[in-house]
Amino acid sequence: MKQLHKQMSSKRDDDTIPMSQSSPYSPKALKHPRSLPRSLHYLFREQRLLFILVGILIGSTFFILQPSLSRLSPAESTSLITRSVSSTNYSPSRMSFNYGGGKTGRVPVGIGPRRLRIVVTGGAGFVGSHLVDKLIGRGDEVIVIDNFFTGRKENLVHLFSNPRFELIRHDVVEPILLEVDQIYHLACPASPVHYKYNPVKTIKTNVMGTLNMLGLAKRVGARFLLTSTSEVYGDPLEHPQKETYWGNVNPIGERSCYDEGKRTAETLAMDYHRGAGVEVRIARIFNTYGPRMCLDDGRVVSNFVAQTIRKHPMTVYGDGKQTRSFQYVSDLVDGLVALMENDHVGPFNLGNPGEFTMLELAEVVKEVIDPSATIEFKPNTADDPHKRKPDISKAKELLNWEPKISLRDGLPRMVSDFRNRILNEDEGKGL
Amino acid sequence: MKQLHKQMSSKRDDDTIPMSQSSPYSPKALKHPRSLPRSLHYLFREQRLLFILVGILIGSTFFILQPSLSRLSPAESTSLITRSVSSTNYSPSRMSFNYGGGKTGRVPVGIGPRRLRIVVTGGAGFVGSHLVDKLIGRGDEVIVIDNFFTGRKENLVHLFSNPRFELIRHDVVEPILLEVDQIYHLACPASPVHYKYNPVKTIKTNVMGTLNMLGLAKRVGARFLLTSTSEVYGDPLEHPQKETYWGNVNPIGERSCYDEGKRTAETLAMDYHRGAGVEVRIARIFNTYGPRMCLDDGRVVSNFVAQTIRKHPMTVYGDGKQTRSFQYVSDLVDGLVALMENDHVGPFNLGNPGEFTMLELAEVVKEVIDPSATIEFKPNTADDPHKRKPDISKAKELLNWEPKISLRDGLPRMVSDFRNRILNEDEGKGL
Ligand SMILES: NC(=O)c1ccc[n+]([C@@H]2O[C@H](COP(=O)([O-])OP(=O)(O)OC[C@H]3O[C@@H](n4cnc5c(N)ncnc54)[C@H](O)[C@@H]3O)[C@@H](O)[C@H]2O)c1
Ligand SMILES: NC(=O)c1ccc[n+]([C@@H]2O[C@H](COP(=O)([O-])OP(=O)(O)OC[C@H]3O[C@@H](n4cnc5c(N)ncnc54)[C@H](O)[C@@H]3O)[C@@H](O)[C@H]2O)c1
Repeated sequence: MKQLHKQMSSKRDDDTIPMSQSSPYSPKALKHPRSLPRSLHYLFREQRLLFILVGILIGSTFFILQPSLSRLSPAESTSLITRSVSSTNYSPSRMSFNYGGGKTGRVPVGIGPRRLRIVVTGGAGFVGSHLVDKLIGRGDEVIVIDNFFTGRKENLVHLFSNPRFELIRHDVVEPILLEVDQIYHLACPASPVHYKYNPVKTIKTNVMGTLNMLGLAKRVGARFLLTSTSEVYGDPLEHPQKETYWGNVNPIGERSCYDEGKRTAETLAMDYHRGAGVEVRIARIFNTYGPRMCLDDGRVVSNFVAQTIRKHPMTVYGDGKQTRSFQYVSDLVDGLVALMENDHVGPFNLGNPGEFTMLELAEVVKEVIDPSATIEFKPNTADDPHKRKPDISKAKELLNWEPKISLRDGLPRMVSDFRNRILNEDEGKGL
Repeated sequence: MKQLHKQMSSKRDDDTIPMSQSSPYSPKALKHPRSLPRSLHYLFREQRLLFILVGILIGSTFFILQPSLSRLSPAESTSLITRSVSSTNYSPSRMSFNYGGGKTGRVPVGIGPRRLRIVVTGGAGFVGSHLVDKLIGRGDEVIVIDNFFTGRKENLVHLFSNPRFELIRHDVVEPILLEVDQIYHLACPASPVHYKYNPVKTIKTNVMGTLNMLGLAKRVGARFLLTSTSEVYGDPLEHPQKETYWGNVNPIGERSCYDEGKRTAETLAMDYHRGAGVEVRIARIFNTYGPRMCLDDGRVVSNFVAQTIRKHPMTVYGDGKQTRSFQYVSDLVDGLVALMENDHVGPFNLGNPGEFTMLELAEVVKEVIDPSATIEFKPNTADDPHKRKPDISKAKELLNWEPKISLRDGLPRMVSDFRNRILNEDEGKGL
């Protein structure tokens, strides 16, 4: 105890030493050591203390005034941060002469060609990257927003050197401000394995993400397209599904985060349309496949193709008699653009009405990729819809759109992409 | 032009005058007028400028350090603000010895009686205030959170002097941190006229509000009860509705903000239950009536009763053959408490299965309140469900709960409350 006390007091001594010792190694400090009373005297003479107080006042005033100077809306301040991250520089004083998001862009007459400025959220993903290719191809400026949860830079790397292309790492759950004419809002994990990974985040992405992008659309007068899903029909009791069908969705199941999230996103879009006059477009996308799909995401086409390339048996859940329709990605992208450019709010089913059972799909994969492929059966997952097939007569009539590429034509187009990525993966593992 | 110039220059003169004139009315100012060079000289002598700089440094340091001192999580800072507003003071160091939100509270053994600390969001509303009465009545501590969108202080004023009661003005769209054992989450506008007023806010309340309160439940280990609604069944195709029915809800209609908002709230509750082990309870409430209901909120019981008291005809929408069930509020409150105290997650239908057409309801109102009352027919509103009636066998069996008060017994109990408020209203207008 005594020792402890001694230690403590010596510790206290140590603490005070440096202040009273004038070390030759402390540069500049204590060059003219003064006694404390003398220093105080010096301080109090000639109103020096008063001037310290004046200084404090000046310093404080600056810091008190400063927040009110920079008091921007959250959206604006966030976008400033993001802009600096992505080091772009749009002149905020440029005026828009077309708020409808029509054919002509926000660039004033006389400044260069009339291009559209288009945001694609989730543009680093499967569908998004194909959409970006099409928009860049026709001459527009495209800004991709993506948090890379499921998206990959590889899907866009061929555009990095294009001055009309830009990539912003940003989560749509946070607001952002950009000057644009059109917003394609795709950001959302799309396959069960991804959207179930963090169901609460999936709902946030769908609700707050959509809210933020609708807020942007309202603020800058842009047209807004939501990529909804055939999952809003749930396990449908109507067959095929028309857009007027209200669906049969389990609100409290494991898939509900996606299904209900997308339904609420549709509600929000319609409320912004009715309440704030935002020009919205709603697409209900049915199963789509093609190059750049996630490998191993549990979606049936990527599963079967990847398994066959890897010489594994194809996994069929349940009896394999549940049906799906399969749309090739270029058909979908054509449909999305047609919907955006037209005058109809929607919702519009975008899908390929050709109906296949899982077993029939497995047959086509066998034919097209590897005749020696085999099938393995596993028990079905919860809430897996039994049947789904779009009625696309609305899109046919009003958008003059219908899919052109059959499953037998489309499947071979994704094989080389899948083969390359699986090869790279295996090489990666081999290292 | 000349005149304008003269005006402008004289204006400029006016602006500069007060600074150079020594008015007898400006107190203290300019007592010892100095010349500018003299003042500057004075400033530069005796290191005064240096001391101003030192002062600026001191002032700035304080303001630079201060935000990092108060850098709490949003939830914490919000709750601090709110607490100071409501001037309560919970010791944050008190430990919980029961995380399940069971019968015993978070107060350590030996410190007073074992009370539960309970939050009721939306507790200033119709259902919430009756629930609070019951909880206070049985000896618990109750904190009400309400933004007073549709709630009224009058509903709680009789509890203001009770030390076990507390009222916090707070919007659930923002997070809040409280030490509690149970959370009854009711905050949400409940009638079409209110939830359609700002549909986007309705969705925010349901999604972000529920997210925030679930986050609180997770953080402090509280049990969480969501008041969902029979509207999750939409315009049901199954009759009566069991809890297993997935519903028939329009995702893009004018009522969707409420219906889809509540469905997503249920999804969130189940995801917190499955993913984070939060003890959740889900109640699906069917039409409820009683004292303190909003007047003029468009719900049929309050409409009919208020109209009859005012000697107006009762408005029936459509043909009046659509049916509803009507539950007296004390039955509902008993059901909510039974659900909270039991071990079943739910969802549970809480409603009165007695089925009435609008015309039959009008007949009962006539009988009970004023035999001379009349009826007026108007066209029906969009998406109004045709039929709704709960199947309450699950609650009967598992919660041992069923409603006790019939429409004929319940209606008279709300008449005097309605009469008083309508009288007060009329007096208010007369002033
Ligand atoms: N592919 C289909 O069969 C299909 C079917 C129905 C609907 N959809 C919808 O189409 C859209 C695109 O689907 P996909 O197949 O290209 O999926 P994908 O997973 O390949 O692409 C989604 C993209 O969104 C990004 N993202 C996810 N959350 C984000 C967030 N919070 N902030 C920013 N970016 C985020 C991902 O990183 C990814 O790049 C999705 O909205 C999906 O729901 C797709
Ligand atoms: N009364 C019914 O017939 C009925 C039927 C089904 C479901 N419900 C549900 O029961 C709950 C209570 O309904 P009620 O009839 O008492 O309605 P009410 O309007 O009287 O009460 C709702 C309360 O929530 C408050 N509130 C609304 N938004 C809020 C926000 N963002 N932050 C904080 N407080 C907020 C309101 O001020 C009000 O006090 C609601 O969730 C409602 O959806 C009621």
